[in-house]
Amino acid sequence: MTMTITQTGNRATYDKLAAMGIELDPVGVPGAAFEMAAQSGNLVFVSGHIARKDGAPWRGKLGESVDTDEGRAAARAAALDLVATLHGFLGDLGKVKRIVKVMSLVSSSTTYTDQHVVTNGASEFLLEVFGEAGRHARSAFGVAQLPLGACVEVEMIIEVQ
Amino acid sequence: MTMTITQTGNRATYDKLAAMGIELDPVGVPGAAFEMAAQSGNLVFVSGHIARKDGAPWRGKLGESVDTDEGRAAARAAALDLVATLHGFLGDLGKVKRIVKVMSLVSSSTTYTDQHVVTNGASEFLLEVFGEAGRHARSAFGVAQLPLGACVEVEMIIEVQ
Amino acid sequence: MTMTITQTGNRATYDKLAAMGIELDPVGVPGAAFEMAAQSGNLVFVSGHIARKDGAPWRGKLGESVDTDEGRAAARAAALDLVATLHGFLGDLGKVKRIVKVMSLVSSSTTYTDQHVVTNGASEFLLEVFGEAGRHARSAFGVAQLPLGACVEVEMIIEVQ
Repeated sequence: MTMTITQTGNRATYDKLAAMGIELDPVGVPGAAFEMAAQSGNLVFVSGHIARKDGAPWRGKLGESVDTDEGRAAARAAALDLVATLHGFLGDLGKVKRIVKVMSLVSSSTTYTDQHVVTNGASEFLLEVFGEAGRHARSAFGVAQLPLGACVEVEMIIEVQ
Repeated sequence: MTMTITQTGNRATYDKLAAMGIELDPVGVPGAAFEMAAQSGNLVFVSGHIARKDGAPWRGKLGESVDTDEGRAAARAAALDLVATLHGFLGDLGKVKRIVKVMSLVSSSTTYTDQHVVTNGASEFLLEVFGEAGRHARSAFGVAQLPLGACVEVEMIIEVQ
Repeated sequence: MTMTITQTGNRATYDKLAAMGIELDPVGVPGAAFEMAAQSGNLVFVSGHIARKDGAPWRGKLGESVDTDEGRAAARAAALDLVATLHGFLGDLGKVKRIVKVMSLVSSSTTYTDQHVVTNGASEFLLEVFGEAGRHARSAFGVAQLPLGACVEVEMIIEVQ
């Protein structure tokens, strides 16, 4: 699978974010027990980020208090925070070779079955920011609950240069 | 850990599938938001595949509408689709060096506790097809719901040559 | 991110475990369908381990029969078993370069939202045993159920030398 990577030049990603009107806010440093990201070889594993709204956990559950459109927005917000963390970790988003894998956890009622649609909010954001380099494998599923009552949590694995 | 890999010759895997009476159906291409598989170095991350029956999502929940035997069959079906996707992605299953990791998500009632038995349907299929190269680490757990109401979703990480 | 690794000398980890009063019990070998760990390149993927108490599954659900303190203890117990499995797999814990990634599955009621606190039981144990090399990315979330009714299941990815 040959892939032409067009969006990962040093400036291109930041230009894209600026054109999207996005500023990368620093994500809160966790307690001492774990890291927001860890690198091994060319892979960076970014910790699961719960969706935030106005700096607070984006609470609720799909199929109950949160509908699919809001869930998509929350997944997008979580992806934005993942990118902010990645920026802080790498120092330069131009080092991103590819988003390899996304895992999306959607707090779901026992009957809600559109976790894939919710997750598109994160996937489409990554495509928008990174272009072809944003194309990733992924898994999405419905969980019973998330930390702090968040409606969505997303983690990802990135290949860096 | 030395491992003699006996089943990954170019022809052996296809011969095995033929002997099992299995044809690899192409798995539906997802919408534009993500890929069915992504490679980084020697690792291929295959997206979570929901179980399908007769081409449609294999719906239901363990502990409610689906019993353990049916769940095993669904997990096996998901694993078969993963192998079909891998065949399409690699072009040649003979490139598989090893199935490294499987994650199995079982849509479960709040009291169903045989997710590991259900998941054996996938694990045993991979062993059957790939022999020693099919031996993998794994995690299996019960989720609140899955996309399209599927009863099982399975993803995997493969090492390729 | 430069990291000084001080705890991964051949003896240091075992000295630390001894100082903590911990003996590594062999973890039960699973049925034939999967492995407790699998290595690809420098990464070791350790299978999800359910928490055990007195050799039996540590049963229950957070938000119902298990409180946060007990959940933390269960997560710590699962992490201890992961380290025991790693010891058995590698033969020498001194080969551990870093704990890269932890995934923690907490069997949760639909309203329990302290999965991150429960998971700290595992994360803090890994930091205690491996020092800086124990610092990891992680995801924690609430699942509907776990195999054998366990209250916590933990898996990890390790980089080895």
